[in-house]
Amino acid sequence: MTTGRRFSYACGQAVTVAGIEDGLVTDEIRKNFASDNVSPACPAVMDAMMRANEGCVGSYGNDAMSQTLNARFSEVFEAEVRVFPIVTGTAANSLALSALVAPYGAVLCDQSAHISNDEGGAPEFFMHGAKLVTLPSADGRMNPEALRTGLRANAQGGILKPPIQALSLTQATEWGTVYALKDLAALCGIAHENDIPVHLDGSRLSNAIAHLGCTPAEVTWKTGVDVLSFGGTKCGAMAAEAVVFFVNDRTRPALKDFERRIKRSGHLWSKARFLSAQLLALLEDDLWLKNSAHANAMAQRIVESLRRHAGAQLPFETQGNEIFVILPDRLVGELEAAGYAFYRWPTPEGVSGTLIRLVTSFYTREEDVDALLAEIAA
Amino acid sequence: MTTGRRFSYACGQAVTVAGIEDGLVTDEIRKNFASDNVSPACPAVMDAMMRANEGCVGSYGNDAMSQTLNARFSEVFEAEVRVFPIVTGTAANSLALSALVAPYGAVLCDQSAHISNDEGGAPEFFMHGAKLVTLPSADGRMNPEALRTGLRANAQGGILKPPIQALSLTQATEWGTVYALKDLAALCGIAHENDIPVHLDGSRLSNAIAHLGCTPAEVTWKTGVDVLSFGGTKCGAMAAEAVVFFVNDRTRPALKDFERRIKRSGHLWSKARFLSAQLLALLEDDLWLKNSAHANAMAQRIVESLRRHAGAQLPFETQGNEIFVILPDRLVGELEAAGYAFYRWPTPEGVSGTLIRLVTSFYTREEDVDALLAEIAA
Amino acid sequence: MTTGRRFSYACGQAVTVAGIEDGLVTDEIRKNFASDNVSPACPAVMDAMMRANEGCVGSYGNDAMSQTLNARFSEVFEAEVRVFPIVTGTAANSLALSALVAPYGAVLCDQSAHISNDEGGAPEFFMHGAKLVTLPSADGRMNPEALRTGLRANAQGGILKPPIQALSLTQATEWGTVYALKDLAALCGIAHENDIPVHLDGSRLSNAIAHLGCTPAEVTWKTGVDVLSFGGTKCGAMAAEAVVFFVNDRTRPALKDFERRIKRSGHLWSKARFLSAQLLALLEDDLWLKNSAHANAMAQRIVESLRRHAGAQLPFETQGNEIFVILPDRLVGELEAAGYAFYRWPTPEGVSGTLIRLVTSFYTREEDVDALLAEIAA
Amino acid sequence: MTTGRRFSYACGQAVTVAGIEDGLVTDEIRKNFASDNVSPACPAVMDAMMRANEGCVGSYGNDAMSQTLNARFSEVFEAEVRVFPIVTGTAANSLALSALVAPYGAVLCDQSAHISNDEGGAPEFFMHGAKLVTLPSADGRMNPEALRTGLRANAQGGILKPPIQALSLTQATEWGTVYALKDLAALCGIAHENDIPVHLDGSRLSNAIAHLGCTPAEVTWKTGVDVLSFGGTKCGAMAAEAVVFFVNDRTRPALKDFERRIKRSGHLWSKARFLSAQLLALLEDDLWLKNSAHANAMAQRIVESLRRHAGAQLPFETQGNEIFVILPDRLVGELEAAGYAFYRWPTPEGVSGTLIRLVTSFYTREEDVDALLAEIAA
Repeated sequence: MTTGRRFSYACGQAVTVAGIEDGLVTDEIRKNFASDNVSPACPAVMDAMMRANEGCVGSYGNDAMSQTLNARFSEVFEAEVRVFPIVTGTAANSLALSALVAPYGAVLCDQSAHISNDEGGAPEFFMHGAKLVTLPSADGRMNPEALRTGLRANAQGGILKPPIQALSLTQATEWGTVYALKDLAALCGIAHENDIPVHLDGSRLSNAIAHLGCTPAEVTWKTGVDVLSFGGTKCGAMAAEAVVFFVNDRTRPALKDFERRIKRSGHLWSKARFLSAQLLALLEDDLWLKNSAHANAMAQRIVESLRRHAGAQLPFETQGNEIFVILPDRLVGELEAAGYAFYRWPTPEGVSGTLIRLVTSFYTREEDVDALLAEIAA
Repeated sequence: MTTGRRFSYACGQAVTVAGIEDGLVTDEIRKNFASDNVSPACPAVMDAMMRANEGCVGSYGNDAMSQTLNARFSEVFEAEVRVFPIVTGTAANSLALSALVAPYGAVLCDQSAHISNDEGGAPEFFMHGAKLVTLPSADGRMNPEALRTGLRANAQGGILKPPIQALSLTQATEWGTVYALKDLAALCGIAHENDIPVHLDGSRLSNAIAHLGCTPAEVTWKTGVDVLSFGGTKCGAMAAEAVVFFVNDRTRPALKDFERRIKRSGHLWSKARFLSAQLLALLEDDLWLKNSAHANAMAQRIVESLRRHAGAQLPFETQGNEIFVILPDRLVGELEAAGYAFYRWPTPEGVSGTLIRLVTSFYTREEDVDALLAEIAA
Repeated sequence: MTTGRRFSYACGQAVTVAGIEDGLVTDEIRKNFASDNVSPACPAVMDAMMRANEGCVGSYGNDAMSQTLNARFSEVFEAEVRVFPIVTGTAANSLALSALVAPYGAVLCDQSAHISNDEGGAPEFFMHGAKLVTLPSADGRMNPEALRTGLRANAQGGILKPPIQALSLTQATEWGTVYALKDLAALCGIAHENDIPVHLDGSRLSNAIAHLGCTPAEVTWKTGVDVLSFGGTKCGAMAAEAVVFFVNDRTRPALKDFERRIKRSGHLWSKARFLSAQLLALLEDDLWLKNSAHANAMAQRIVESLRRHAGAQLPFETQGNEIFVILPDRLVGELEAAGYAFYRWPTPEGVSGTLIRLVTSFYTREEDVDALLAEIAA
Repeated sequence: MTTGRRFSYACGQAVTVAGIEDGLVTDEIRKNFASDNVSPACPAVMDAMMRANEGCVGSYGNDAMSQTLNARFSEVFEAEVRVFPIVTGTAANSLALSALVAPYGAVLCDQSAHISNDEGGAPEFFMHGAKLVTLPSADGRMNPEALRTGLRANAQGGILKPPIQALSLTQATEWGTVYALKDLAALCGIAHENDIPVHLDGSRLSNAIAHLGCTPAEVTWKTGVDVLSFGGTKCGAMAAEAVVFFVNDRTRPALKDFERRIKRSGHLWSKARFLSAQLLALLEDDLWLKNSAHANAMAQRIVESLRRHAGAQLPFETQGNEIFVILPDRLVGELEAAGYAFYRWPTPEGVSGTLIRLVTSFYTREEDVDALLAEIAA
């Protein structure tokens, strides 16, 4: 019998995560494709935390490690940046936006955006009621023409509509697709023409970089990104993200007092070294990118097999570590019965079968994938 | 030359924390009495996190460890409780109060309260602008008569004053004193007579319990506390606190949707097991209490020596792990020059000397204390 | 030359209101179909205010007139109600919703709703960041099936989506259509099945009542409305609306401290008699309904003529006092050149011509309408 | 029997306002000294509203009258100003402060300030949780030395304390005293040295001007006031105040989007002409100042008599239209029994008698005062 809490993911149905039934971690821990956050932390991150656990050091970021973050990230991103470690992506996104947008303002984002659908209203809380205005898209990637139209419609509303004061994009997107650099640049260009800064939700930025084969600089400030939510947890941290400001005229006002916003939301760690240690470990030897390249490769291994499967439909390109696939209802049920964990997504009207999401991570092994594929093939 | 960020503590002057000058952890790491949060985590906590780092488990609290928290805390507190792990004390306090008080309401607290002075406005943020109404006290312990007067004055204001909807007390207090159980009970009684729930900021509750020699139950629900901010970080965790609701008619409405408040403030960890592991490790074998008993003992060792020092004045009883002492200006300067780290507090008018705060922790050794005392005596 | 501020209406283009060019009210004051709020107050309302301007009376609602409001509205609505006079519809809507919905919650409404498009983010401000979730509709009237789907999708999101805690409907709708009583009842029924109270934005409720030929009770609590934003300004007041709670188990919690919300948003008048006097004047002899019946009749006079006009398309039924009509671009320009004031609305893609809105009021005369129609016919 | 709602004023006890018992305005309407807002509007204001009630005009401030406000106030204040009519003082104060202070910031004010004690938490609401930090004073007039100390203490708190971003002063003060121009200038000077703009709560500014015999310019921008809450209701309007920005480098950022803040709080009148008409009527022929000079004179008439009364103690100078007087308990009871309305204030400890407040207005007649004085003398 299942005693675990059943948790219903946004837009999805409740799923009992395999391996934790009856409160016990079972041997099914490798059948879990529910999310990249069901994984543990990667060993290098844990080691770094252990090494940080020595001596008295200044609290609230006044420790030696925390004080290297700006320099280290500036090196990795080849630009002057200011880095603020934050424990969750929800908080990183929301804090970043709160520094860009007045309470009476608005943020433009894709209708699939995590900030709009999956963060329990956190952006609205941190922004004191500023509005999220969404634009439709086919696959999570905003269209430049739609952006222009959206900005124009908002401006026509005059004081009756909260003014758009930031554009928030997601890379990789919520549907597992990745913006080409030129497309990202086009969107950022439109925002900047309208004096609007660009925020990038980079919860899975490392997956996008691994896919694009570009540098961190190319996918961010070189295409026009002003503020980045740097994702660490999904690519191997225990719990560590960061808000990264690329220092320029659009971000300078937001930088002022940003630490106060962190403190005021209870996100300033007293023993901050443990947050910094994780981030530094991820950057060491490109661990974040290597972890994500592995996750992407595991996703491709799944996709290649699914493409050959008569009953499977892949509604989106799989470019990162998230696979959305429509499978026959019966097969989905059988996978669940076999102990596999994943989320069911609302299946579009008129489609036969069930849309599910499979997510891989640094922790996913080839044999785990092959076992899943064998189950699907059977 | 000092390159470290200088951080100015509330009500105190800027202090450059010894041992991190020039970005290096020096051998002075044992001369740091600035706070209990300059300490590392205690080994048992780190071990528990390492052990938790195994396998895929449900995220957001759907892991086996997180699901034992309610039962484990209920056992420790000898009552039915609901536990919500939270990474910082600021967030724990603010979330707890936000569930008790409407945005148009108010919280009554002592003028020394951390929520009023040292959290960068976090309670007001989480409570959406509800007000903190403060009462004066001599040593951080609220007086029952002052409480009655404060409640009456508020009620007389009618709709022109935000109504008091929670009483927040701090145990141990910000001045290092500890409420006797009967005094705490008197205050809670008055609150309950007025249909007001009681929140306890227990950032240093373990120090208070160690001082009182009571049970966790006696200092909380048995005296009338309804909601507790359980402090873990200061007594040995890496970063782990908890909001503990004692289930009763006053807390039931606040419990509804409390998880939503956590998510909405970016405080829901995806890999929640690592937060739970820390809390469970602290409760194991009363580690939290043993750590605090040690910290208290180190504080007493300092106090006993200071009492015999002609130039030292102790304005408050030292009952936990915080010592406030007025020392001759020159001695304070010499201690700093010798590499000791501590905060200078605003010295009351008309007093000669400088008020400083010394804080001990589980990590403070007898030899560290003795070296400090020798320096003072010299 | 025009010196007047150009004001751009939501979803529309800037319009220079005829009759106020160069800061002068011209003789074109009767060519203004821009809105029902360009009208003055009706004489009976102004008389009532003059009569109220006598003697010292209690402030903040402690005057004799204000104290009759509950009884008077209860009589008109044939139910026990609690009435709170509020000076603007934006504030009335926002205050009502803020009392129904927690800051972490959400309101479901039609995508055309005024609260979502035209109030500058006021609902989000008063609700402390709670979310407006919108549903598409063809003509501003929500579809019961869409409502069920929307509620289900929200519930599936679990804690990642702010929970729907109120349904807000608009009668007459923003597109000038009116819900039939049974359709309104169906929507309210679904909300109540889901334990969700129903708010009605009744900014033009009087126009709906005049159209339906029903009683105020039938269109509100008898169909399931729990809280009403009673519109007074558009049907003849100077500036007076009201939040009307129908006392029941769904509204009782919201009633608690509602006055505090009013005070806290700066909406409690000290000389409250002048707000109450307006409302009482509107109710006297059904003035609000008579004024609206006249406005509706003037709108029908326009519509009947437009139906016979070859170049005019009417995308919606005109059931209240708002007419949406697509006219040839050239004709629209000629009307403006002739001094007529109205708003241009964004014209749907693929439609030839320009969508404009014409609004009538108690102040619109037959000769004003006929002059307009002659201009259109010419 | 009394059926009227009993309303309890801040810091005072409940008072049943004479003249509205049993829901009837009695002949005791001239015995009401409870507040200046128990008065009606003055006839010139009502006449102006009647004259404004003609023709269709642009809404939301796009009418001819509203568009003269900036020029008219600039003339009266001898400086370039931007004027925003607001219906209540609570909203005017709160909106002004919200434009000066970030949500994570703070406002410094006197402990007696209306914004801190009597507005139901409105400033905190409009400022999204920014904090009011209060300083003690003897008679409502802030001391320059206390201001310096307060600013220093706040700065020392670093990120743990919300930073002071505005100074709010009140003229005339809540205790009926008036700042001398040089004292006001000293306070503003300190604020400006600290890069902090000055807000003036001018709910009774006209009484202060009448007392000082100065110009509106001298008591505002010439002494350093940056933003003024202009009080109209207490000196004769029906319901009309204004936020007046003196255009300078400190106010320019606050001016941006100020209209959006007004709309977002439901304070933008659609028929805005009726708000503007009141303000223009008050300025015409210095009506606001003449009304207040009369109110002040009536207050002096009372004070002069009380000074000769053996049982009366006057704790503060009476410089405006508010008189605070300690009278024998029995006399206070007798006045109430005789139908006089006024508020009882909390009497300071150790004082024998009862502290009451008497307020005069433009509507108070000599014979009303003399009747009261006769009653007291009897």
